Amino acid sequence: MLELGVCYYPEQWPEEMWADDARKMVELGLKWVRIAEFTWSLVEPSEGEFNWGWLDRAVKVLGDAGLQVVMCTPTAAPPKWLVDKHPEILPVDESGNVRKFGARRHYCFSSDIYREHAVRIARAFAQRYGQNPYVHAWQIDNEYGDHNTIYSYSAAAQSAFQQWLAGRYESIEALNKAWGTVFWGMAYKSFSQIELPNGLVEEPSPTHLLDFYRFSSDQVVRFNKAQVDVLRELSPGRPVTHNFMGHNTDFDHYKVGEDIDFASWDSYPMGALVYAGMSDDDKARLLRVGIPDQPAFNNDLYRQVGRGKAWIMEQQPGPVNWAKHNQAPQDGMVRLWTWLAFAHGVDVVCYFRWRQSKFAQEQFHAGLLLPNSEPDRAYLEVAQITKEMAALPEPGERQKAQVALVLDYTSRWAAETLPQGADYSSARVAMDWYSALSARGLDLDIVGPHSDLAGYQLVIVPDMVVDNPDFVEKLTACDAKVYLGARTGSKTADMHIPDNLPPGSFSQLVNVQVNRVESLPSYAGDRVRIGDIHGPVGNWREHIVTSENVIAHFMSDYRDNDPALVGNDKCWYGATHFTPDLLAEVVERLAGWAGVELGQQNATTLRTARRGALNFAFNFGGESVELDVSEDVEFFVGSKTVPSFDVAIWRA
Amino acid sequence: MLELGVCYYPEQWPEEMWADDARKMVELGLKWVRIAEFTWSLVEPSEGEFNWGWLDRAVKVLGDAGLQVVMCTPTAAPPKWLVDKHPEILPVDESGNVRKFGARRHYCFSSDIYREHAVRIARAFAQRYGQNPYVHAWQIDNEYGDHNTIYSYSAAAQSAFQQWLAGRYESIEALNKAWGTVFWGMAYKSFSQIELPNGLVEEPSPTHLLDFYRFSSDQVVRFNKAQVDVLRELSPGRPVTHNFMGHNTDFDHYKVGEDIDFASWDSYPMGALVYAGMSDDDKARLLRVGIPDQPAFNNDLYRQVGRGKAWIMEQQPGPVNWAKHNQAPQDGMVRLWTWLAFAHGVDVVCYFRWRQSKFAQEQFHAGLLLPNSEPDRAYLEVAQITKEMAALPEPGERQKAQVALVLDYTSRWAAETLPQGADYSSARVAMDWYSALSARGLDLDIVGPHSDLAGYQLVIVPDMVVDNPDFVEKLTACDAKVYLGARTGSKTADMHIPDNLPPGSFSQLVNVQVNRVESLPSYAGDRVRIGDIHGPVGNWREHIVTSENVIAHFMSDYRDNDPALVGNDKCWYGATHFTPDLLAEVVERLAGWAGVELGQQNATTLRTARRGALNFAFNFGGESVELDVSEDVEFFVGSKTVPSFDVAIWRA
Amino acid sequence: MLELGVCYYPEQWPEEMWADDARKMVELGLKWVRIAEFTWSLVEPSEGEFNWGWLDRAVKVLGDAGLQVVMCTPTAAPPKWLVDKHPEILPVDESGNVRKFGARRHYCFSSDIYREHAVRIARAFAQRYGQNPYVHAWQIDNEYGDHNTIYSYSAAAQSAFQQWLAGRYESIEALNKAWGTVFWGMAYKSFSQIELPNGLVEEPSPTHLLDFYRFSSDQVVRFNKAQVDVLRELSPGRPVTHNFMGHNTDFDHYKVGEDIDFASWDSYPMGALVYAGMSDDDKARLLRVGIPDQPAFNNDLYRQVGRGKAWIMEQQPGPVNWAKHNQAPQDGMVRLWTWLAFAHGVDVVCYFRWRQSKFAQEQFHAGLLLPNSEPDRAYLEVAQITKEMAALPEPGERQKAQVALVLDYTSRWAAETLPQGADYSSARVAMDWYSALSARGLDLDIVGPHSDLAGYQLVIVPDMVVDNPDFVEKLTACDAKVYLGARTGSKTADMHIPDNLPPGSFSQLVNVQVNRVESLPSYAGDRVRIGDIHGPVGNWREHIVTSENVIAHFMSDYRDNDPALVGNDKCWYGATHFTPDLLAEVVERLAGWAGVELGQQNATTLRTARRGALNFAFNFGGESVELDVSEDVEFFVGSKTVPSFDVAIWRA
Repeated sequence: MLELGVCYYPEQWPEEMWADDARKMVELGLKWVRIAEFTWSLVEPSEGEFNWGWLDRAVKVLGDAGLQVVMCTPTAAPPKWLVDKHPEILPVDESGNVRKFGARRHYCFSSDIYREHAVRIARAFAQRYGQNPYVHAWQIDNEYGDHNTIYSYSAAAQSAFQQWLAGRYESIEALNKAWGTVFWGMAYKSFSQIELPNGLVEEPSPTHLLDFYRFSSDQVVRFNKAQVDVLRELSPGRPVTHNFMGHNTDFDHYKVGEDIDFASWDSYPMGALVYAGMSDDDKARLLRVGIPDQPAFNNDLYRQVGRGKAWIMEQQPGPVNWAKHNQAPQDGMVRLWTWLAFAHGVDVVCYFRWRQSKFAQEQFHAGLLLPNSEPDRAYLEVAQITKEMAALPEPGERQKAQVALVLDYTSRWAAETLPQGADYSSARVAMDWYSALSARGLDLDIVGPHSDLAGYQLVIVPDMVVDNPDFVEKLTACDAKVYLGARTGSKTADMHIPDNLPPGSFSQLVNVQVNRVESLPSYAGDRVRIGDIHGPVGNWREHIVTSENVIAHFMSDYRDNDPALVGNDKCWYGATHFTPDLLAEVVERLAGWAGVELGQQNATTLRTARRGALNFAFNFGGESVELDVSEDVEFFVGSKTVPSFDVAIWRA
Repeated sequence: MLELGVCYYPEQWPEEMWADDARKMVELGLKWVRIAEFTWSLVEPSEGEFNWGWLDRAVKVLGDAGLQVVMCTPTAAPPKWLVDKHPEILPVDESGNVRKFGARRHYCFSSDIYREHAVRIARAFAQRYGQNPYVHAWQIDNEYGDHNTIYSYSAAAQSAFQQWLAGRYESIEALNKAWGTVFWGMAYKSFSQIELPNGLVEEPSPTHLLDFYRFSSDQVVRFNKAQVDVLRELSPGRPVTHNFMGHNTDFDHYKVGEDIDFASWDSYPMGALVYAGMSDDDKARLLRVGIPDQPAFNNDLYRQVGRGKAWIMEQQPGPVNWAKHNQAPQDGMVRLWTWLAFAHGVDVVCYFRWRQSKFAQEQFHAGLLLPNSEPDRAYLEVAQITKEMAALPEPGERQKAQVALVLDYTSRWAAETLPQGADYSSARVAMDWYSALSARGLDLDIVGPHSDLAGYQLVIVPDMVVDNPDFVEKLTACDAKVYLGARTGSKTADMHIPDNLPPGSFSQLVNVQVNRVESLPSYAGDRVRIGDIHGPVGNWREHIVTSENVIAHFMSDYRDNDPALVGNDKCWYGATHFTPDLLAEVVERLAGWAGVELGQQNATTLRTARRGALNFAFNFGGESVELDVSEDVEFFVGSKTVPSFDVAIWRA
Repeated sequence: MLELGVCYYPEQWPEEMWADDARKMVELGLKWVRIAEFTWSLVEPSEGEFNWGWLDRAVKVLGDAGLQVVMCTPTAAPPKWLVDKHPEILPVDESGNVRKFGARRHYCFSSDIYREHAVRIARAFAQRYGQNPYVHAWQIDNEYGDHNTIYSYSAAAQSAFQQWLAGRYESIEALNKAWGTVFWGMAYKSFSQIELPNGLVEEPSPTHLLDFYRFSSDQVVRFNKAQVDVLRELSPGRPVTHNFMGHNTDFDHYKVGEDIDFASWDSYPMGALVYAGMSDDDKARLLRVGIPDQPAFNNDLYRQVGRGKAWIMEQQPGPVNWAKHNQAPQDGMVRLWTWLAFAHGVDVVCYFRWRQSKFAQEQFHAGLLLPNSEPDRAYLEVAQITKEMAALPEPGERQKAQVALVLDYTSRWAAETLPQGADYSSARVAMDWYSALSARGLDLDIVGPHSDLAGYQLVIVPDMVVDNPDFVEKLTACDAKVYLGARTGSKTADMHIPDNLPPGSFSQLVNVQVNRVESLPSYAGDRVRIGDIHGPVGNWREHIVTSENVIAHFMSDYRDNDPALVGNDKCWYGATHFTPDLLAEVVERLAGWAGVELGQQNATTLRTARRGALNFAFNFGGESVELDVSEDVEFFVGSKTVPSFDVAIWRA
């Protein structure tokens, strides 16, 4: 069931406008309205003094009009009176400075005081609205991790970290061994001696750092779970979610996902482009379109995080306010992103926000309406989507993909802990794979180390740094062919080099031993050759010894012709990260090997997807594209010729 | 009456050199000598213990030689004993670190203790020299704002800010409304809860920030005024000034200007070039000449700040010490800048400094003399100027220009408060206009929102962000044609979007509604077309609805042909900031429309100016330029052919 | 006597591996093993509780196998219990933040408490091993200055600085005069008022800064000397060293060198390249070779620091872990660098480290063995060196060079104190000279202002900023021709401009007066012409008056044809820093003038050196080079044709 919704802030507009707003939302075809995530100081202006009337009325007005409410717990913005009473709830930055009140997310996940107050206010909301007939779902807090808020270096965090470590290691000897404190004479005698890994003279032990990352992630999971429990108790049957930010990987989204009923994410493709690690030329080409696979990747990721259930909770409807530059999306892109999300298994797309604000931090952020309530461009596109949805058969669930791409949060942290090369980006490695596979028309599932691998034909492990014997066992047991990228299995869970050298237990799949690693600058001249094709090596080169077949070679004035890609019938290993031009060739060969059928090649502009009974095509380019489909397919939206920034949907 | 002067530091040289220095100054034709701005610790080595003798003698030696003294209050450098006694007078930086003693400007404008001591020492100076026959003028403090010293995040500043806000808003409800604290649940219950806008998790409310900027500016005005009052009381008839820095717009120079008798500014064109936002190629071209219009702009600005009366208090005489690189000015430039200042209405030009220092921070800073008292290059140029001045008729006042260019400090702060695009620079927008108009031989007046607009034929409002109905009324009432640049009227005084959308009340002049704004990166491909000419769009593009005539269009793969410049017979509106190549064409058309006669076009090298009975031409280029004047004009300096880096002056 | 060694960490490996490791070291031909520099927390796990057993056994195992032990004092890594007991021993960074425990070098050189504990633990080590027959040498601490640890802004440092200043100046009046505090009214009344030069509003007095640099250097000397005294007392006859880092010039290496018996340094050419101020193209060319003259320069420098005796204590054996990128050295380079060190007078080369670590911060740092004990590449190269050494006659001492290059640490600090131009690098100026002279086959001695100059034919003074009449006297008295580079003699010891202007007392050698200085950006177009050759001027240009012969001229649109290089029969003066292309020509002319015979020109790849009875050639390039030697020379290693990355050694 595909549905649309919107984020609305009744508290920011005169009450006399609410009913008209609600009526227009329904007219536009919206079913859902998300409210209240920054209302704590309004609802509880002083400790214990509650002011529910306005919110009661807002829920009623919206519900009466026919909308289903997503109610938020307001814990992303503790009120000033709470901060004044307990300044120790504030987060502390890496330099040791307290991060002050005045915006949002000004709390430390490790503060017991804050967590207790968060649960208290969540309980108050749940008591008030848990059984309200108009409240159909809950969102907890807002955008964990925004503005670098997972890591806090407060006294509360230090104390909680010590306890967490005591739980993990049980004895200080075990910690000393894991952290390798013998290395620079850094031995500890008790957990109470341990400090947070900021402000050191040199870098801390990578295990110290990785444990801090694990700890910080667990603190988020714990904070979220405490509110989930309250909502489960007082609002049974209403699904609970959190709205994630795809680019922030500072905590384990899968683990938060396990505690909630569906995942949602906030989709801002324009800003994502501005901050992407791409050339200015590429950014110019994609200026008002964004990176085609960035929203697709996140749709697939949060489908996994939500164990099959995903929403977009905030969809950019026009230019925003927070990026370095804020260009407008091309006319048509808001509709395209909406259909893209549905095609990737998303069930509800909500737009942020109903009406552009006249004041405060985000007044340059577009809405469906202008500040004077005239319709902005996206309003018209949503109206078109509503019309198109009406003519569409129910698509059902998205089917399992043939190809799985592994994203492991712990490995992300491990790679950051010991980056070795300044330009190394696990996110880019993953996105390059996603794009190369998507460009050939493949649907993908993003999976974690905990996922079931049965039924896949090909599993891509881009750079799963942390060795994982259980996962290796799953890979061995399943029928899929396996691709292992450089750095895979290069560290144990304690952030040591495996005894048998990298790729550790993954060498059960492919006979490779990594003896030497180079992180190379962009100006290095090394290249890789696959058959007749060659291109620049990325910023990572491994020197391996292997008995496997060699599929690609390095071209270099240093150890020329050394193996760059090797494999056997079960598993290939890449001793570098292939840049996009070479990756296209690797995908071609992988597909042939794994028996995966590739689709229409139109890498720069066309993307396709399948969901149940429907096929989708999306044209991100400035020129129309001809689909490679038979003449007699039944189109529900568009036709065989897909205009620029447009969509086609046809019966599968 | 055009006069020359110099900055002198008797305390830095043996007393036996003073008389000879003074004699040589007079011989060189200097009339003024500025002294004593860093002498507090010498004059009052311990609290209440005064040591006036040396300064008495210095004033006498200089005055006896025939020089008129500009005496300074020494409050830019509080002595160590005062800092030790009251460390809370020190400023605090944005990270919360106290900025320590050891250089200068180490005080917080909000410290009542410091202001009291500043008034006390100013009073002591005024009592001592207020009636001294050799002291003809006063300078208060030195270079407000140097090294980012307007903003301080001290406890004193926080407390003063709370009081200032209470004065502005009267009720906390009014503040909450203005700041839009409902947006992220940031509501305050009392003024005493409010903190300074540094160190937040995300950006503060723009109104919070704008109020902090307004407050910080007001603190400067108050600090300055307290000393003005003392000098007025004890040294009546002696004009009072402050030496401003043109590039620092952190406080409202007009407001300080209202309290003093004339404005002065410190002119360092070489450093200004080094830090300019220009390409390296352009900087190489202008390396030892500087940006031709940078000193001209400031001369015009401070003529306005001083309500018709302006000096250059410090004129660079050679290479300096403080820029990233410190190149020498071309031989001739010191003379050129001096005449340029006179042509723009400046009455006195003082050089900084008489003799290059042998020690301390600025020993690489050139003077008129080398450290060994031999004449440096500028000495010779000043000698030439003196000779030329002698042959010149009294020019009188500079006449009112036909064209006014608006500079509004509050709008500058507003633009910084919500920059929206990282590269946006109001200073560059203003300078581009100034250059485009000057390049066509136009004299300009820089005006503020408080200025009288009667008599102008054309008023350019580059980007007056803060809507101002009074100013709109003045524009409406005057006969001038009006040009409004993008962002004009885009925010109310409370930093909200106007109810009728931008340009707010300016839409009374031109029927424009701005529905969407884009800040674009330098790699964006959008262009603007005016007739047959087209060029790249700047970093700002507005999507407007209008019923006015369209004069220029956007060229883009996004909403191609949308209006970029529109207007009626009274007012034009630009929906972008035109880059210099297009601006030349806009100026051409504006002039035709407004009936302003353009002069000789020689944009890259020639500038002209008029002052009373005299016409001036300045050649900033490496090749000589032929003036477009009749054969029989009477030249006082130079001739029809102006050599490179040279000047011509003729009877108007 | 040329010997090899290795750095070994028995504490990081199971005790059962030690004997086998020791046996393999001896088999490989290693004579020395350095141990224990990070073992404090192991040896003294609580205050006063010592645990020597494991170290006793390690020394015995190594010594029994035939190795000579370099024992380290472990003061680079104070244990956690000491930090917890005395947190005031921690260093404080320039922002005022305490630098925390968790890595190494977490101590402030000015902490009396720490120095006492350091002496106490050094005494404990010396008592235990001072007479141990297997301990043949001592290393004190480890890499002074690593990670910016010379400067600390702690309370201890402030107090010690005040005392140091009282010792230097005796009266506060003298300090005020030297620092020029009259300049901005910064006068002090007592030494106790003086603060450290961090966190000021503007830059401090350069003399304040230079004194802080001198003080900080003296604190290192004092800290080191305190341990030397203990070792001399308890371990007489065992030579004492410290392992320096060549790129860190924050303290006076000569002065530490005077207190020890030989100098050693840590050689990491790959990282040195990554951080070099070179173009990416040049870095790409040298990617896996490094800057050929960087290790040579340091070998020569530490031969001087060690008064004729130098080791490499840590030689990079493969890729490392700490640079921005970490490429591998070309196969052969480890051997090449080893022979290069011997050729430049180094007596012992130790490799860092025996076996790559599996854990902690440096697990990506290669060793002679892989983590699984298989030989890595460098192991094989060392085996080859051992074989080659066996066939070589004893070379004896390296002979005095004809050409001396002056490196003065105080002048380095002075240049940083008042950099004037952002790109100015004394290190690059010195390295450019070293390379230009080496490229023509010259052996060089690096000398300090304290060195004896007798016997040199040519002394190059690249930029000895601090005027030094004693040194001028030595230059005058010796027979050498002298080259003075720009900035030489430009400041007195008090950091003032000399009374007679630069080059101060150096003008006794050459009649030059520097009237004006320009620091130029890279985009400036000025050039220099020597005869028919011309090239871009560096970032420094001086305007001089002189009666000397003019050898080179500036080409510029500013003061074209001004003198750029002038001189008489004793001394030349360069008014700029010649870039490498022009420097080659200057070297050609200097050699002709000074009667120094130049060798084979093969600048980009070939370097030669002489040591006693042996001649050496080193090919840093990718193609083989033909040596310009007669057919009948006797080669011990290699032959007349030197392959890429290879070495030739023949009888002189």
